[in-house]
Amino acid sequence: MPQDLIDRIRLLRTSGIGPITFHQLIARFGTAAAALAAVPDLARRGGGKAPRIPSEGEAESEARQVDRLGGRYLAAGNGAYPPLLAQIDDAPPLLMAKGDIGLLDRPTVAIVGARNASAAACRFARGLAHDLGREGLAVSSGLARGIDSAAHDGALDSGTIGVVAGGIDVFYPPENEARQTAMFERGLVLAEMPPGTEPRARHFPYRNRIIAGMSAGTIVVEAAPKSGSLITARLAAEIGREVMAVPGSPLDPRAQGCNQLIRDGATLIQNAADVFEAIQPSAPRVHAVREPFEPQPPSPLDGDDSALDLIEELLGPSPVPVDEIIRLSGAPSGAVQMALLELDLAARLERHAGGRVSLRPA
Amino acid sequence: MPQDLIDRIRLLRTSGIGPITFHQLIARFGTAAAALAAVPDLARRGGGKAPRIPSEGEAESEARQVDRLGGRYLAAGNGAYPPLLAQIDDAPPLLMAKGDIGLLDRPTVAIVGARNASAAACRFARGLAHDLGREGLAVSSGLARGIDSAAHDGALDSGTIGVVAGGIDVFYPPENEARQTAMFERGLVLAEMPPGTEPRARHFPYRNRIIAGMSAGTIVVEAAPKSGSLITARLAAEIGREVMAVPGSPLDPRAQGCNQLIRDGATLIQNAADVFEAIQPSAPRVHAVREPFEPQPPSPLDGDDSALDLIEELLGPSPVPVDEIIRLSGAPSGAVQMALLELDLAARLERHAGGRVSLRPA
Repeated sequence: MPQDLIDRIRLLRTSGIGPITFHQLIARFGTAAAALAAVPDLARRGGGKAPRIPSEGEAESEARQVDRLGGRYLAAGNGAYPPLLAQIDDAPPLLMAKGDIGLLDRPTVAIVGARNASAAACRFARGLAHDLGREGLAVSSGLARGIDSAAHDGALDSGTIGVVAGGIDVFYPPENEARQTAMFERGLVLAEMPPGTEPRARHFPYRNRIIAGMSAGTIVVEAAPKSGSLITARLAAEIGREVMAVPGSPLDPRAQGCNQLIRDGATLIQNAADVFEAIQPSAPRVHAVREPFEPQPPSPLDGDDSALDLIEELLGPSPVPVDEIIRLSGAPSGAVQMALLELDLAARLERHAGGRVSLRPA
Repeated sequence: MPQDLIDRIRLLRTSGIGPITFHQLIARFGTAAAALAAVPDLARRGGGKAPRIPSEGEAESEARQVDRLGGRYLAAGNGAYPPLLAQIDDAPPLLMAKGDIGLLDRPTVAIVGARNASAAACRFARGLAHDLGREGLAVSSGLARGIDSAAHDGALDSGTIGVVAGGIDVFYPPENEARQTAMFERGLVLAEMPPGTEPRARHFPYRNRIIAGMSAGTIVVEAAPKSGSLITARLAAEIGREVMAVPGSPLDPRAQGCNQLIRDGATLIQNAADVFEAIQPSAPRVHAVREPFEPQPPSPLDGDDSALDLIEELLGPSPVPVDEIIRLSGAPSGAVQMALLELDLAARLERHAGGRVSLRPA
């Protein structure tokens, strides 16, 4: 068991450390081991108590379990980790993967949609996935009922990637056991949560960001207004990926979400050729890249509390962009990021979409 | 019977004089009477023989017939003539109208589509027309089967305008007699062709340009690829009007035309609110306005053949923009236009879309 993997598992499972904080700690301290060593001090400086860090034994136990399940870890930005996913700022620091890792080298398109989709829409999704697969694309989706399942089925022979909201060994919905098992053998299944995790409502948006993040574009087939599929589409748009939607009659309530997406600028998709036309012209445009946060020599402000105090004063309960904090403080970006990290580890910072932060009520 | 109307009828029914030539003659000579007097000479200078001009008696006979039918003439740019239609360069010089002329003062939206549309699409068109009418818009269409008929029916109470391809007294298709008669009473019917004209295939594109031309926007509901409705949409786009389309499932062949329109930039329409959002933001943007061709004092080139010879040399069997002829000739725009008019009246010029002209093979 490589020591760096054990360190990464320990750091990631430390209470209060989310993906963004994880990436910033690695960027700041170089290795997970160095970050682990620094965490207690940082939290104390931020005004909190040291968070609970899992023991080596606990991390090894998780790693052995993944191994026993036939899975393996992928670390953000390393090796087989999905390259497009690594570009988003809250990319999962570790993914568990079971199946054909080689699929991650292929350009990938997501097909998502309603769980209660019409038979016609499922047939369309299956056919589209099949046609895209035949042209060499991997098709990603969420292993849910309806459109997701149809998309996986259509691309099962060519190569499909399922992202589950719970642990890699958990079948949800239960009737998907055969499909997920087939994808272990002939496709690929990815999970962010540790083995055994039963998916909860809050896990699905995280799952959706992985689907959108690893794909050059996301195609929505039948989605009700305010559905999870539209969240996936929004996430894809936010990170600058192509958003595509399959239209339907305005008389069909299940077409409203997709029609609205098209009105909002999504590309109308009728067939695989339309998808290629949408995603070919350019490499995916990444608008929201991770905040540059290079390891840098300690700034003059490091080691005293003036930056921390100043930044705490600038923060309040309303989310503010980090850029604005940097500008208002007049402090070097690295010092501000470090102060935010300290507040974060002290459980006093809340991170919001779009790189915004706020102070938690005491 | 006003003399100017009789003169306009004579000029318009003169062989070889289409709408563009008509407008240029009026612009050049000020009145239809002056244009009629000039036509024989112009044709001779262009190298042809004088075209046949209908007699006063023939024109009066047509005018009396329109009167007997309960119709009236509208002359381009005068009085009740549809104001948006007057802006296009091949606006019908004369329209025959029967019904409520007051509808022409209202902002107008066209609803067009397939003759063999699905029942659901017809229902949608009827409902949309009803909702638009209730908000004060006049709904225009082509009095054809399918979507056109549904649109007229939906807006019959609020105000609908039908444009027929043949004479105002001809019912086509025959089963539309009751609908067209109802619109004489409670709506408005417009025709470009003289009474008694049976519509031929070539008349329908002319009819379509009137529908697109008089409307702030054109909504297409179900249209097969390469259908007449798509021609109407293309004409609307060419003159800078809003093009709107109602989407459908890619599995439905009748939705292909509309889905493709949306891919090409048409606004996706789901309901009346979407239509208002599309047409409200600005007054119709007129991109293709009539070539300015002000009456002007005879230029030095008038009266000799040097401009004519030069322009004949510049022309060939391939269509060339008039602007380019003006540039290449170095002659004043008025002189070039006059030479083109002479060639036109001599039946030696062909006029094409986009202000292009070519020489007819001798």
